[in-house]
Amino acid sequence: MVKITFPDGAVREYRPGITAMEIAEGISRGLAKKVLAATVNGQVWDAVRPIYNDSTLKLLTWEEAEGKSTFWHSSAHLMAEAVESQFPGVKFWVGPPVENGFYYDMDLGDRKLSEEDLAAIEKKMNELAKQNNPYVRKEISKAEAIRYFEDKGDEYKLDLLQNLEDGNITFYTQGAFTDLCRGPHIPQTGLIRAIKLTNIAGAYWKGDEKNKQLTRIYGITFPNQKELDEYLHMLEEAKKRDHRKLGKELGIFTFDDDIGPGLPLWMPNGAIIIEELEKLAKDTEEQAGYKRVVTPHIAKENLYLTSGHLPYYQDSMYPPMELDGVKYYLKAMNCPHHHKIFAAEPRSYKDLPYRLAEYGTCYRYEQSGELFGLMRVRCLHMNDAHIYCTREQFYEEFKSVNEMYLKYFKIFGIEKYVMRLSLHDPSKLGKKYVDEPALWKETEALVRDVLVRTNTPFVEVQDEAAFYGPKIDVQIWSTIGREFTLATNQVDFAQGRRFKLEFTTKENTSETPLIIHRAPLGTHERFIGFLLEHYAGNFPVWLAPLQVKILPISDKYMDYAQNVLESLKKADIRAAIDDRPEKIGRKIRDTEMAKVPYMLIVGEKEKQEHQLSVRKHGHGDMGTKAVAAFIEEVIAEIKNRASEQ
Amino acid sequence: MVKITFPDGAVREYRPGITAMEIAEGISRGLAKKVLAATVNGQVWDAVRPIYNDSTLKLLTWEEAEGKSTFWHSSAHLMAEAVESQFPGVKFWVGPPVENGFYYDMDLGDRKLSEEDLAAIEKKMNELAKQNNPYVRKEISKAEAIRYFEDKGDEYKLDLLQNLEDGNITFYTQGAFTDLCRGPHIPQTGLIRAIKLTNIAGAYWKGDEKNKQLTRIYGITFPNQKELDEYLHMLEEAKKRDHRKLGKELGIFTFDDDIGPGLPLWMPNGAIIIEELEKLAKDTEEQAGYKRVVTPHIAKENLYLTSGHLPYYQDSMYPPMELDGVKYYLKAMNCPHHHKIFAAEPRSYKDLPYRLAEYGTCYRYEQSGELFGLMRVRCLHMNDAHIYCTREQFYEEFKSVNEMYLKYFKIFGIEKYVMRLSLHDPSKLGKKYVDEPALWKETEALVRDVLVRTNTPFVEVQDEAAFYGPKIDVQIWSTIGREFTLATNQVDFAQGRRFKLEFTTKENTSETPLIIHRAPLGTHERFIGFLLEHYAGNFPVWLAPLQVKILPISDKYMDYAQNVLESLKKADIRAAIDDRPEKIGRKIRDTEMAKVPYMLIVGEKEKQEHQLSVRKHGHGDMGTKAVAAFIEEVIAEIKNRASEQ
Repeated sequence: MVKITFPDGAVREYRPGITAMEIAEGISRGLAKKVLAATVNGQVWDAVRPIYNDSTLKLLTWEEAEGKSTFWHSSAHLMAEAVESQFPGVKFWVGPPVENGFYYDMDLGDRKLSEEDLAAIEKKMNELAKQNNPYVRKEISKAEAIRYFEDKGDEYKLDLLQNLEDGNITFYTQGAFTDLCRGPHIPQTGLIRAIKLTNIAGAYWKGDEKNKQLTRIYGITFPNQKELDEYLHMLEEAKKRDHRKLGKELGIFTFDDDIGPGLPLWMPNGAIIIEELEKLAKDTEEQAGYKRVVTPHIAKENLYLTSGHLPYYQDSMYPPMELDGVKYYLKAMNCPHHHKIFAAEPRSYKDLPYRLAEYGTCYRYEQSGELFGLMRVRCLHMNDAHIYCTREQFYEEFKSVNEMYLKYFKIFGIEKYVMRLSLHDPSKLGKKYVDEPALWKETEALVRDVLVRTNTPFVEVQDEAAFYGPKIDVQIWSTIGREFTLATNQVDFAQGRRFKLEFTTKENTSETPLIIHRAPLGTHERFIGFLLEHYAGNFPVWLAPLQVKILPISDKYMDYAQNVLESLKKADIRAAIDDRPEKIGRKIRDTEMAKVPYMLIVGEKEKQEHQLSVRKHGHGDMGTKAVAAFIEEVIAEIKNRASEQ
Repeated sequence: MVKITFPDGAVREYRPGITAMEIAEGISRGLAKKVLAATVNGQVWDAVRPIYNDSTLKLLTWEEAEGKSTFWHSSAHLMAEAVESQFPGVKFWVGPPVENGFYYDMDLGDRKLSEEDLAAIEKKMNELAKQNNPYVRKEISKAEAIRYFEDKGDEYKLDLLQNLEDGNITFYTQGAFTDLCRGPHIPQTGLIRAIKLTNIAGAYWKGDEKNKQLTRIYGITFPNQKELDEYLHMLEEAKKRDHRKLGKELGIFTFDDDIGPGLPLWMPNGAIIIEELEKLAKDTEEQAGYKRVVTPHIAKENLYLTSGHLPYYQDSMYPPMELDGVKYYLKAMNCPHHHKIFAAEPRSYKDLPYRLAEYGTCYRYEQSGELFGLMRVRCLHMNDAHIYCTREQFYEEFKSVNEMYLKYFKIFGIEKYVMRLSLHDPSKLGKKYVDEPALWKETEALVRDVLVRTNTPFVEVQDEAAFYGPKIDVQIWSTIGREFTLATNQVDFAQGRRFKLEFTTKENTSETPLIIHRAPLGTHERFIGFLLEHYAGNFPVWLAPLQVKILPISDKYMDYAQNVLESLKKADIRAAIDDRPEKIGRKIRDTEMAKVPYMLIVGEKEKQEHQLSVRKHGHGDMGTKAVAAFIEEVIAEIKNRASEQ
């Protein structure tokens, strides 16, 4: 018998040669229908592959990332089968799963694919899926494999075979299509119930532009039509809400070749949003007892050697500047700077918790290829703070930070979020993690305790902690269902010691504080990028760069418009007049396009009665209001940071 | 006859061999009494040196910097004479004038000087000054000079002689003392009427620590006792008001070896002052129609090649970081970044004047030896902005900037200031200055016009413009009379072209805007350093990190104190309770020391009547006030940014 250990620690015995699918069927038919693959002793396997040795087992469904990628990998094979049936003689290179879907690179000779071809391939894939053919794994000798592709005349697969070792080679076959493939795959094609081929692109063989250009077809598949529909809808929305497109249209930010990649310039409208976000953070942090500091953007090498960022984080840092024989680095983190402020004066238990906050701008090196709009940048304006506290204070402090996150989620209308509790891996102590097993245990328990006792939704993830302690990564979803990693909340029991930070206890002894690193609003870059998509550029009034636009029906009402403008400005409302000699319809349309929350139309009637015709963006006509009443309402809306526009 | 040309352009003829002093006497006896030296054909000369050729002439008195330095140089000789009379056999190295006074380096053998020795030398100097001996210049051959110092046995002067050319050597003698000296000197010792020797220090010969350590005596002298008294008083005050001392005591800023020299860390109290200053600037600039932007602290080499900072300003920049084969520099100026924002969108005359403001942090390399507290740093938080305008708009824009300076001076109680109009030197066009003679003439006239028409006190200085245009340097004096260079207001007709900045005119042609660079509050570093001295740390309420401290007479009144604290916080007043178990006298003393503007003493009577006993820092007891009335007064004081504490 083989012993199978399940994720919850339960152990059961099965006959040798049992498959994950059979085990799943033994548990429940419903579950078995969902099984796509399985993790056996840490490796992803076909669900129908026999197990002969004692193993740990985790069944993989669509819910698991590995389940999805297996599904998409099998879909790439299905697409290849469909292509081959349409274009006999096609030669295949590689076809991996990607973040969303899969692709396959192929040589179609001189044939250029059209949209119609794509539709035909998609149709064929649906037919083949309905045949519900099994994916069959076969171990094969290198000689036999070479013979197969020589017969087929596919020099690309022969090239791949060159680098493979005999005894480690497998073929997978479904229906009429056989591929050289390590696997694993889903049990049968019938699981693929919704298919969309999304794009045709050129791709140089092996990524080298001196080689032949192959045809790459991208696609995505789902276990049901509903999920595909939702995905396509989200894509469409995401395209409309693309933060790079909106950022340019609304004058939020720009990039310039002479400044450098990943280094956004914040235009006037972007700077207003930054100011409002900072005001929110500063107000919130002041109420929560934080003190603000301002620290330089550079420091000597020695600081980062003490913190451990050098050499461990060196790859993500800009290279040093050498001055008077000393190396200076741009800061990639604010923490070492804050530690120095903590250390600048003697501290006692009465000073704790000591909370230092700064909108510190950090610089991190990301590969050019990974830079993406505001989402992956090299310049990070962080909503940073560090809390120095005793062990007794930790629970309350960590809880307050989590509550601050939730408060912000409410303000920004973020309804879906999850906290990932990232833990250490005991086998990597002293390598990836500070070698303090007892402190890891203690602090991980402390953090879990906060999440459990506050009923915060969370998942636990092994081997993703910071090197100095466990952390919570916060993931949020935008209104259109896209996922963003926002920020982290980290415990640090290591840096306090490295920097010899101390406070005097009640008993007049010296102790090292625990440190919490936190950044609830993440960076301006990523958060404003998120907000652009989240709001589709329709910022709520408090964040909108221009809050009110006054549209005089004609020049005759310019005086009155000016009058209204003065009143609005006196009330600190960001307002302007559309003084162009355009018709009112055009003015309304343009102001709608610019996504200004309020439009005030002023003509004869309004002027006579000292009133305003109010239009709200996305809501249309709101009727007539007295100037003072309108101002009062808008001020309240701004003050409450009302999230809907 | 020799033709003498005076500074106002007048030309008079005199007999050959006439001296500046004789010319002065011919003008007025009173003037002649004040003459210390003269500038003859651009060189400073003894006032009693005969003039044989046609010359330009400027008489130098105590008012001129060159007059002062000649006076102090002669004082160094006087001190040497006094030392030699007290310590025969003393050997002298060099004795130059410095910014404030003079010093002389000497070898006194094993003799260490005491305070009593200093007093004795000072006394002797006074005696010698009263003898009113003339300073006599004598041209001497190198051989004769060497013989003189060989006889005297002064190897230091012999070392100096080695590097001098025969025919260019002069001796100066006053009373019993003769020195090897290029001069010039004042006419006679009697002009030195007030003497103070300030310090004794060690100084390695030629600044090399492998050489013998010489004795350096510092001193300062004045033409009358009143000025010396004022100077000593200012020194004493400046010592008490030393921004480095106050900055530490008040928790404003700190330096750390691991961060680096010239890179201040702003502590929580410093960050509050920064926030208040930024609020003032942002409010003022918003009202004046500026738009805010946020730009990265680094950029590619190419940006600074375009702006011309590379290579012209390279020595003041941090060395580059090389990344992906591209050099990145820390920005030393914000202007090129702002130009890129101007260029990011098409601009029309309707958008002008376009005013971009940013509290941009720049980094500049200053030699370690030149760094001084907050006054000379490597990290500069600048109150920066750039105004893009047409020629027609220039006058109004430049005037508004100057008015903004004056507005700030009023807020900060700066009563003495002067604007230095820095002009180009036509002989350096194409080298130090952009080669555009007509534009220089035009913009210099524009700037002068603003100053003249607004009755702004100013002086003109040749050859101190920026390379891209004329500028105004603003100098201010602190309450104790020390001078600070605050900021500049510059015209720039060159960078717009270099960056190809353009706007569409009414006539639909393209034109390059004029640019004004301005930073009325200078940098946080220098301005807060200035304010620390200016206010002696007694910040006005709006700037004070802690505005109000509540002092309960005993624990019994803690509830009431807490109650008052809540009310103050609700009104956004920065307040705290002194909750230590100390006597009220001690609490008052400590709060005075911490320079908190308001103290509220609460005991039985105050609690019963819901009142406060108010003490104002520097004013003492202000009587009893109701809580609401006190809050109202303080809010008004904060809102008005009242400058006196």
